[in-house]
Amino acid sequence: MKRFIEPDSVAVIGASGNPGKGGYALVENLKEKFMERLYPVNPQYEEICGLPCYKTVGDMPEKVDLVIIFVPASTVPEIMEECGQNGLQRVMIQSAGFAETGDQGLKLQEQCVNIARKYGIRLWGPNCMGVVNGQSGMVASFMRHDMFKDKLRPGNVSLIVQSGMLSAGFLMQILSEGYFGISKTCSIGNRGDINECDLLEYFTHDPETEVVAMYIESISDVPRFREAISRLNRPVVLLKGGISADGARAARSHTASMAGDARISEGLFRQLGIIRAWDFLEWMDLTRALVLWKGKKGGKRMAVVTFSGASGIVASDHFAMHGMKLATLSRKTLETLKTIFPAWMKPRNPVDIWPAIELNGEDAYRVTLETLLQDPNVDGIYLHLYVHAQIFDNDLDFLRPLEGSEKPAAIWPIGDMRFYRTLHDHAGSMGIPVYKEIKRGVQALGIMKRDPHRPLTSI
Amino acid sequence: MKRFIEPDSVAVIGASGNPGKGGYALVENLKEKFMERLYPVNPQYEEICGLPCYKTVGDMPEKVDLVIIFVPASTVPEIMEECGQNGLQRVMIQSAGFAETGDQGLKLQEQCVNIARKYGIRLWGPNCMGVVNGQSGMVASFMRHDMFKDKLRPGNVSLIVQSGMLSAGFLMQILSEGYFGISKTCSIGNRGDINECDLLEYFTHDPETEVVAMYIESISDVPRFREAISRLNRPVVLLKGGISADGARAARSHTASMAGDARISEGLFRQLGIIRAWDFLEWMDLTRALVLWKGKKGGKRMAVVTFSGASGIVASDHFAMHGMKLATLSRKTLETLKTIFPAWMKPRNPVDIWPAIELNGEDAYRVTLETLLQDPNVDGIYLHLYVHAQIFDNDLDFLRPLEGSEKPAAIWPIGDMRFYRTLHDHAGSMGIPVYKEIKRGVQALGIMKRDPHRPLTSI
Repeated sequence: MKRFIEPDSVAVIGASGNPGKGGYALVENLKEKFMERLYPVNPQYEEICGLPCYKTVGDMPEKVDLVIIFVPASTVPEIMEECGQNGLQRVMIQSAGFAETGDQGLKLQEQCVNIARKYGIRLWGPNCMGVVNGQSGMVASFMRHDMFKDKLRPGNVSLIVQSGMLSAGFLMQILSEGYFGISKTCSIGNRGDINECDLLEYFTHDPETEVVAMYIESISDVPRFREAISRLNRPVVLLKGGISADGARAARSHTASMAGDARISEGLFRQLGIIRAWDFLEWMDLTRALVLWKGKKGGKRMAVVTFSGASGIVASDHFAMHGMKLATLSRKTLETLKTIFPAWMKPRNPVDIWPAIELNGEDAYRVTLETLLQDPNVDGIYLHLYVHAQIFDNDLDFLRPLEGSEKPAAIWPIGDMRFYRTLHDHAGSMGIPVYKEIKRGVQALGIMKRDPHRPLTSI
Repeated sequence: MKRFIEPDSVAVIGASGNPGKGGYALVENLKEKFMERLYPVNPQYEEICGLPCYKTVGDMPEKVDLVIIFVPASTVPEIMEECGQNGLQRVMIQSAGFAETGDQGLKLQEQCVNIARKYGIRLWGPNCMGVVNGQSGMVASFMRHDMFKDKLRPGNVSLIVQSGMLSAGFLMQILSEGYFGISKTCSIGNRGDINECDLLEYFTHDPETEVVAMYIESISDVPRFREAISRLNRPVVLLKGGISADGARAARSHTASMAGDARISEGLFRQLGIIRAWDFLEWMDLTRALVLWKGKKGGKRMAVVTFSGASGIVASDHFAMHGMKLATLSRKTLETLKTIFPAWMKPRNPVDIWPAIELNGEDAYRVTLETLLQDPNVDGIYLHLYVHAQIFDNDLDFLRPLEGSEKPAAIWPIGDMRFYRTLHDHAGSMGIPVYKEIKRGVQALGIMKRDPHRPLTSI
């Protein structure tokens, strides 16, 4: 798999000199990473993007690690044959028009798979958008060059997706909005040969991957999937498409996936300790929590620090819905909190911090957070924060106690949302995710009821 | 109730000359609306905010419509007596320190309620933040003046809330983010006398109120609530705090609400056709949908227009979770769609519009939306939109078919989120809500399965 994801040399069959075409974007994108050893192939051009263009696969000066095919579906088998005859062993078909279009496309796809088998070629796709490697900077995808220009950022999250959108526009949105950096994003399409299990096995040995986020429309091979997840030793956040009859029907014409019985896969996912998401941003929000909380240890007993009775109550309700509860604060904690609260106020959980702030200013936060973190009855903290320009005056110093702690903490802000991004990024750099909806923060803290890095099932 | 919400004259007992105090903010805020007939009362000052200050309630030159009390709890009964003796009939206690603090506070509150009864005073509060009247511009609340300055905007949503935050910081955030304008926001606190039913009855006859959004921690009087909702003739979106044991416990120390058995109230809410929300922004998102979809008629059969298989599939899954389904497009619709799609593409629902856009540009949207709206099998449209600068070139003209339609439509955008607010506001002005999460738009469209303006239960 390594030479799919980190190839030293690449050919683009179906490269184009027309900047409006995907075959041009492929070359332009790959050029960001490859100064040489990138070979456009198209008999109609002498040169593409300043690189010499080759007439056929056989004309290239070396046996490249990876061949990307982006020509009309009907002409792909012929090119596969050529690849095989020239000893090329890794082919990625990004063209669409295969099993997802019906019987005729399925036949075409089977033909390609058979040719691959004959020559011992590993086949990625068809109907996919390839690989975006955030660590190496390689973009092996036909998405428009300006979509990712200046946006790609290395990180430790790898994505396995059965959707071009998720490795293109959506991924770039996630990067622009500062969710996390990317290790590898792999768009696997119809999975003619290579499937999610191959990638899970690869990421098991990839030191640059700490969290895996998956969008798939079916499981290719249940026993192998079970084994791969069990060995992975990294948390997996999964969004599964096609869990309804209508959704499953749509999945067939998207990636030719047979979505199968939702109840069975639900049971499997639960058994394997896979973290579930049900929507795209939710999926990324939970993934971000795992990145920021690396090395932290949570639990079920939550402390809520708030300035509003209502938000504390709604958070408590959501914790209950996620099988968690409000921590019973220790006597020592209550005694310490009394020192910063006015005499009339009896501290309790949720901790309504406003009276303490009126009395002690920002120091009330520091004392409250430190005290709660030291309480053995508290497994995590949900801080509701009123946001305005002044909270940034001391560089969010009042959040420092959370930064060093082993207990996870999340922030729900209200107020002047012009400062949302500043808070999101700054708190994020301190290991604290910020969520606009109370229930999202609760859901994230809910992941930490058990250690998400420890597999539930051993094989 | 009218003179609580639209008083012609107001007194502020506990007015302060110290700009850091709530008693100052009350006068400063009310001055925005009242040029005269606003009377600060405090024996320590001659003048507050440029207005003559009165020593006692009895010194005021007229019997004001509304007396607002903002003095320490222990001194409130005495002032209530004074009000009664001076024939003042509407009192709003914004001070805290009553039933929400325990037995002693409860006694104090009962004392106030008894005094009110003795004199025939209607009592609002205690422990509340009063009224923000978006239509008249009156802010009868101790929130800081700069919090709402230039933010208040008239509209047709009225809020009934048991939380100061929701009528202050959170409300201002909602206004700043362009959710909707405000008719009246009523913070009712501990509900010593006036409760949510009084306000529901009032809004039944308020032509400026088209949708009611409620946050309450318990129902004051179930039979009266049932009757008030049945007569209201306006949709109600409810967020209920204290639905868990921990949440209910927290509600007791917030507004002294006995949250009661969640299962019983769930049944009641369902029976009354009340629309439920489970979090603050969700509550506002659904309210916004009702404002924008006024006069439209929905149903269960949805058309999805998308550029991504995955988002169409996930939307289909969420529609199924909400008891809805993908519409079976009529033969006529399919025939029309074929005219804008490439020959290899068989149109279906979800409609993957990308190939049609590559062929026909923005016109593909117009034709697709018009065709779907005319299809008798389609009750509503969920449009997934790839957002970038160019979509605004023609003033979002391609969305026009949705504007005039009686069928509800929502947009889920991905792409360059710097344009999110522009899209949100512009599409909003055309009656189309925009949601960042697929499931939120589905949830909103789910409201329209039945006519939300028609009560389910008649009395």
